[in-house]
Amino acid sequence: MRTTATYDKNIKEFIINTPDFEAAKCWIGGSTATHGVVYAQLYTENKHYGLHIFVVPIRDPVTMLPYFGVTVGDMGEKMGLNGIDNGFVIFKNYRIPQEYLLNKNGDVTEDGKYVSSIIDENERFGAALLSLKAFRVRVIDNNALLGVSAITIAVRYAAVRKQFGPKLNELPILEYQTHQYRLLPYLASSYVLLFFGKHLQEIFYIFMPELKSKKTFQLLSIELHALISAAKAVSGWISRDAIQSCREACGVHGYLKAAGLGNLKNDQEPALTYEGDNWVLIQQTSNILLKLWQGVKVGVKVKFPSKSANFLNDAFEILKSKFTFSSLKEVCQLDSIITIYQWVICYLLNESDNRLESLKNKGSSSFTAKNSIQVFYAKRLSEAFIEHYFLQNFLKTNRQCPDKPVQAVLTNLLSLFGLLRLEKFIYLLYQGGFASERDSALLIQDEIINLCSKLKNNAVALVDVIAPSDLILNSILGHSDGQAYKHLEKAFLTSSYGTEKPSWWKDVVNWRDLAAKAASKL
Amino acid sequence: MRTTATYDKNIKEFIINTPDFEAAKCWIGGSTATHGVVYAQLYTENKHYGLHIFVVPIRDPVTMLPYFGVTVGDMGEKMGLNGIDNGFVIFKNYRIPQEYLLNKNGDVTEDGKYVSSIIDENERFGAALLSLKAFRVRVIDNNALLGVSAITIAVRYAAVRKQFGPKLNELPILEYQTHQYRLLPYLASSYVLLFFGKHLQEIFYIFMPELKSKKTFQLLSIELHALISAAKAVSGWISRDAIQSCREACGVHGYLKAAGLGNLKNDQEPALTYEGDNWVLIQQTSNILLKLWQGVKVGVKVKFPSKSANFLNDAFEILKSKFTFSSLKEVCQLDSIITIYQWVICYLLNESDNRLESLKNKGSSSFTAKNSIQVFYAKRLSEAFIEHYFLQNFLKTNRQCPDKPVQAVLTNLLSLFGLLRLEKFIYLLYQGGFASERDSALLIQDEIINLCSKLKNNAVALVDVIAPSDLILNSILGHSDGQAYKHLEKAFLTSSYGTEKPSWWKDVVNWRDLAAKAASKL
Repeated sequence: MRTTATYDKNIKEFIINTPDFEAAKCWIGGSTATHGVVYAQLYTENKHYGLHIFVVPIRDPVTMLPYFGVTVGDMGEKMGLNGIDNGFVIFKNYRIPQEYLLNKNGDVTEDGKYVSSIIDENERFGAALLSLKAFRVRVIDNNALLGVSAITIAVRYAAVRKQFGPKLNELPILEYQTHQYRLLPYLASSYVLLFFGKHLQEIFYIFMPELKSKKTFQLLSIELHALISAAKAVSGWISRDAIQSCREACGVHGYLKAAGLGNLKNDQEPALTYEGDNWVLIQQTSNILLKLWQGVKVGVKVKFPSKSANFLNDAFEILKSKFTFSSLKEVCQLDSIITIYQWVICYLLNESDNRLESLKNKGSSSFTAKNSIQVFYAKRLSEAFIEHYFLQNFLKTNRQCPDKPVQAVLTNLLSLFGLLRLEKFIYLLYQGGFASERDSALLIQDEIINLCSKLKNNAVALVDVIAPSDLILNSILGHSDGQAYKHLEKAFLTSSYGTEKPSWWKDVVNWRDLAAKAASKL
Repeated sequence: MRTTATYDKNIKEFIINTPDFEAAKCWIGGSTATHGVVYAQLYTENKHYGLHIFVVPIRDPVTMLPYFGVTVGDMGEKMGLNGIDNGFVIFKNYRIPQEYLLNKNGDVTEDGKYVSSIIDENERFGAALLSLKAFRVRVIDNNALLGVSAITIAVRYAAVRKQFGPKLNELPILEYQTHQYRLLPYLASSYVLLFFGKHLQEIFYIFMPELKSKKTFQLLSIELHALISAAKAVSGWISRDAIQSCREACGVHGYLKAAGLGNLKNDQEPALTYEGDNWVLIQQTSNILLKLWQGVKVGVKVKFPSKSANFLNDAFEILKSKFTFSSLKEVCQLDSIITIYQWVICYLLNESDNRLESLKNKGSSSFTAKNSIQVFYAKRLSEAFIEHYFLQNFLKTNRQCPDKPVQAVLTNLLSLFGLLRLEKFIYLLYQGGFASERDSALLIQDEIINLCSKLKNNAVALVDVIAPSDLILNSILGHSDGQAYKHLEKAFLTSSYGTEKPSWWKDVVNWRDLAAKAASKL
């Protein structure tokens, strides 16, 4: 943000300079690389043109030592992912040729003139950041896969671990309502995120290239930004909570390093932060939705190619609708869940917009007003938006499932995911007048419990379908043979530590002397 | 649970036997100890008398090797706390003298007669487990202290770390609403838990000994069990979430091992499980409250010595009351928060009880019925109960504060804690008809944001008061001098890794030869 690239037209070079240590770029991946892609504030002819991207040689490719003017190094040990090198870099009046500027969004001519097709500086800044999007898709996939590993371990263990029960007749812990609630929603979210990942890949590799030349491409680009920004954040939170809940559900055995859950936690952890801190990144989604909303209010139609927000065209009808489901059977219908979600999104959008307006009318700047609605409005809006899209997408896939019994189980999974995520919005259903009868929204909670108990007997099979191999899972509790206790027994009894006297014992206590002394006293 | 202690009256010894590996006792602390305190199912004269406690010699105190018949060892590496040894133990027909039975709750005479003052087996089981309570108090304190360390690091860092801002003028991240929301509630909970810990110690070391001979002692014992069971669980969850939120709020720098947050996470982790899994342990509290409720319904007065549940005597009046606070100023009054909490507790108690009754009327066993109300009723009831007590206790202490400006800040902290924890119950306020006007309960959310922004400027001072010394905190981001960047700079630049060529370089690439070759080509 504060490193500058100042063009010197006399020698036709940029001078890259990091003003102080606080402006150092930290967490560069591959600090051992020979070249870096560096964001810096571009200056030419004494004028500032904002953030631009440069290819910068870092190390001599022969000696591998950093060039003079470049200070680069490793950041030291991390909580996890220690196989990946992360470092920092600082530039001191370091010169690079003029043509090392990546000039897609803006360029400097040899004689120092700035040229760009994008006039607005904020827009240029946005364009420069856009290239960060692709990696976020991989973060989403990775969140899904780490969650799958955790739920595999915890479900397999819960099926064999017994505890409590009526009259000392111990039951497998998966039989308990609380345990089902601690695990099965994360089994559901694993499927949802895996399906969403596949869908994103379709968009990236099939849909996007097809649209490239068409005028809807720009729209898809905005839509994708809204979807990916929220999905990266929400999938990260789900994955974090899934691994945590699975660790806790495995009891103290889950605390063993050999259970593998500690490593999953530590490796998932940075996904909450890199590629944009979740709390900050998710604001991108609400910003786009609030911009759309300005159009919706005056009748401009939303025409997103992936249809993620097109229901907003009926927003004012949706806002007038009511919670009319009177039985559990009705509430768990996927269409009902989607209907409720759409109401929640419209309601939060409308409320966010009203709050923004009222703050601005009271004299807040746009920056301050936006900050003031994040916690209870904008963030929850983005969450509801992406959860609705997860459901919509899974529902479409599931409708094509040729195997009816499988489809029925997947429908239960999807309903569980939808209702569980909706539960946090129940207060809105009441507050916004959507649920006017006192107990109506409670059907959501009752159905969550129902679905958990329905899915209990399918849990191990559902896990087996998506589980990685035993070698990859590498967990003493999660083997596919279901013999957690056998593997624990083998590990405990074949370890010499604690069962045998350590080799260094004589250094601490001369037990032979002590024994002889004790014997002589008898 | 399945290890047996069978009395053999011929030789006046108990035979301790673990039937199979699944019945091994795991996670014994001090697997290197010479003696163990062992729970086993007592059998004498071919009859079973339930769990009893025995002192069992494990290792020869001279050679330190386990005795014949005892298999004991270490469990291997853990996620954290690797300085503490945890092991497993198995007994194979291992004999101990008759007098090694700890006979407070039940005894076996030399000739094998079982004698006990407690006739009911379940009650004896309860008495045997009661001694586990004392350690839970230490777990609560530890949860508080680990949370204090985390919030110290994150608040100090948030005051110096700058990011974004209007027109590239970057602001310290503590200025952002979302960041305040991510940290300040955990600053509040740190104070609340520290005060609660002190209060528990008063009860244990002053109040309890005074009451020992009086008839209220039994009541205090039940009350303490209700308080400690919920407090151990809720303080654990708060501490877990505090450390996690602090790690995330420190961004990727929080992911550095040197930040210290990873160690805090790993060391707090087992507190969610040991001394009773949180989800299981917290059921103790709702069980006690539901038992009390049977009395309340027929007019029996609750007379708990610490007054944690005595407001239930007015339960039916409380249930008829309404949310009458019309301004932010009113809602943030501590008395208002306590009033709302009391309504929530009465409402959840009544609903839980009704659900239990209706399930039993439909033919559920008591065991099944209780399992079926845990997730959305009993667990939330226990949480509300202990959060209310946290508030009640802090409020009492704060009223005695002689320094008015300090008192005002502490009041803000306490209100923030109370309202934030209440936020998850807003749906109940609507559903139960307590908040009848549509927007009323939203005052709670608005006031949370207000309080965060009010407390922002006190945050560093509030942290300094409770922070451990820099030596103990041991965090590169959390030094009391507030110079996080200087400490980072020093650590990065003095590490040779990444800045210098590693000593083993020549083993991988002969760069001198490569350089010579490259030079000869020029």
